Amino acid sequence: MSVTAAPGFRAAGVTAGIKPSGNRDVAVVINDGPSRAAAAVFTRNRVKAAPVLWSQQVVAGGRVRAVVLNAGNANACTGAPGFQDAHATAERAAAALDDSAGEIVVCSTGLIGERLPLPALLDGVDAAVAEAARDGGLAAAGAIRTTDTVAKIAFRRGAGYTVGGMAKGAGMLAPSLATMLSVITTDADLTSEQCDRLLRAATARTFERVDSDGCLSTNDTVVLMAGGASGVTPDEAEFGLLLTEVCADLARQLVADAEGASKSIAIEVVGAADEDDAVEVARAVARNSLFKCAMYGQDPNWGRVLAAVGTTSAAFEPDDLNVAINGVWICRRGAVGDDRSKVDLAPREVTVTVDLSAGSAAATVWTTDLTVEYVHENSAYST
Amino acid sequence: MSVTAAPGFRAAGVTAGIKPSGNRDVAVVINDGPSRAAAAVFTRNRVKAAPVLWSQQVVAGGRVRAVVLNAGNANACTGAPGFQDAHATAERAAAALDDSAGEIVVCSTGLIGERLPLPALLDGVDAAVAEAARDGGLAAAGAIRTTDTVAKIAFRRGAGYTVGGMAKGAGMLAPSLATMLSVITTDADLTSEQCDRLLRAATARTFERVDSDGCLSTNDTVVLMAGGASGVTPDEAEFGLLLTEVCADLARQLVADAEGASKSIAIEVVGAADEDDAVEVARAVARNSLFKCAMYGQDPNWGRVLAAVGTTSAAFEPDDLNVAINGVWICRRGAVGDDRSKVDLAPREVTVTVDLSAGSAAATVWTTDLTVEYVHENSAYST
Repeated sequence: MSVTAAPGFRAAGVTAGIKPSGNRDVAVVINDGPSRAAAAVFTRNRVKAAPVLWSQQVVAGGRVRAVVLNAGNANACTGAPGFQDAHATAERAAAALDDSAGEIVVCSTGLIGERLPLPALLDGVDAAVAEAARDGGLAAAGAIRTTDTVAKIAFRRGAGYTVGGMAKGAGMLAPSLATMLSVITTDADLTSEQCDRLLRAATARTFERVDSDGCLSTNDTVVLMAGGASGVTPDEAEFGLLLTEVCADLARQLVADAEGASKSIAIEVVGAADEDDAVEVARAVARNSLFKCAMYGQDPNWGRVLAAVGTTSAAFEPDDLNVAINGVWICRRGAVGDDRSKVDLAPREVTVTVDLSAGSAAATVWTTDLTVEYVHENSAYST
Repeated sequence: MSVTAAPGFRAAGVTAGIKPSGNRDVAVVINDGPSRAAAAVFTRNRVKAAPVLWSQQVVAGGRVRAVVLNAGNANACTGAPGFQDAHATAERAAAALDDSAGEIVVCSTGLIGERLPLPALLDGVDAAVAEAARDGGLAAAGAIRTTDTVAKIAFRRGAGYTVGGMAKGAGMLAPSLATMLSVITTDADLTSEQCDRLLRAATARTFERVDSDGCLSTNDTVVLMAGGASGVTPDEAEFGLLLTEVCADLARQLVADAEGASKSIAIEVVGAADEDDAVEVARAVARNSLFKCAMYGQDPNWGRVLAAVGTTSAAFEPDDLNVAINGVWICRRGAVGDDRSKVDLAPREVTVTVDLSAGSAAATVWTTDLTVEYVHENSAYST
């Protein structure tokens, strides 16, 4: 169902020859309106790829006609010529749509530091726009895959409208292929200000809480387009909930398919003084290499969890910390708790619960383990 | 020469039975004065092991008679009973020396979350104090090894005095064995205030710039004891330089022996607006898993360096960044530079230079690569 679950959108995925594999590598998602209200969030990395720099300008206007995406080349660290390539991509899509390049978002994912094969890409843009159709959502989701083993799609139905989306990426787990891209569409009628506010709220608790290896891509982009074809102005709370569900669904799919990972790990922090503390602690654990190696080894090593918690500025007393792994409280009051042999770490899904005993706020960050396969895949990539 | 390079110090390393291997595992370093001026720096981890909590109190008094160290068990995350064990260790050493426990520093390294085998340890303390001698420096350095493949020692001669030291640890590379411990001695005559000021300055640019995997131990301790046996009050600048050289020498030995590492990597940041910026950028690169995997794969992947730099708050413009690996400027002005095939990454020693083009400050952080062996060693440790 993907990005064409909602009426008023067309999509396509085509082969332009950017991926050496010969698989589909260029996608478009076209909003046929009547509204073009849109918003996007981008990577916080200060080294931003050319398509991010281009698309930030586009989205500042609050209107998006279409998103063009390519896989196989990130168009990152390519200087002024790379920006011209992103601009040319938008111009070609605009020409094919008889529209303005200033309302075309461009996303790229793949190798860093190499120029795009522009003629091939532009031919691909023409072909994708020509093919774009209501049934093209899955092809689009396939075309943006890099090392993703499956296409990631999700949708939810609201009261008279639909929210659908696609995503690619392995969290930040993969190397120059790290980029997380997502396009979400809806036929609900929203202003661009609503799109912006609701998308920021939804991504803050979903995509931004996926942290596979702490590495921040230069290309991350999540775009929301609200075409308004349903004519329904949704209840904002309901829409926000559905949007968050779609984002959460896609985010979980990213973790589940993370490169080289053998565990999908939820780091659940409870008893925090506030949500910021909970997120800081969860992220510190999620980024701790020694903890992640222990998970790979199916070793319920709570000492490494405590050592990670201790690096944060969150409110807690070391002697009040409790840690459970898969429900067994193996650390109580900062010291050894229940028998660690009761922890079953064989399943792929793992939940680590950290109780800070400092309040009632909570948050969860999703991560993966650090594996031999991760090192293999990320040491052998660009050579 | 180690901790007994300077006159006025005795040391020993004995087997107490804490290490399953049966190797030496308890060390003492005794200061026979006439002065007991001393200082120490400890881990910034808020989850501090019991011996750190004990020793912080001792060092606050500015006087240290002896340091007792054990390997094989970190006495971390052991609650109030663990603190009592650290206290008992100091008491036993004090009794053997007919002195005050309030001037005995205790250091532990090894498994987290398990109680010390106290009777064995206390017998070891007795034996070590009984054996302590001027020629015991190397045995002490051997006894504090965990996964260290070699003992780490260093010394420098000043104008009428000596600075000597020992250290253990693999940066933070190893798991619950991560701890970095170091004892440095001198027969120069210094106040405890001088010890504190000079030790903080020396460690800030040496031990604190070793960052193998970003994981902060619960037990890190560096102690400086100035016995004053030479009767020489040193020139403070000269002493600071020698002390820094000893710390740098030991720090480099830690990186060279880091568990599972195949590369010793200097991340050298130049052109920074100030030293804090330079350290922040160097540390961000040193902690980037994707960059570290690329080094393991001998892949001069400058895009991952830029992506790491982009996560910092340092002053720079993305289009002004230059990156060299082993002297080849493969990234110029934020984009592709010289031919990457010119970079030779076969040697163990690697230098990555990041030019921020934002000023004239510089700093270097030493790190290692992320290897399959690292994951193996750290996933198989406590199980």
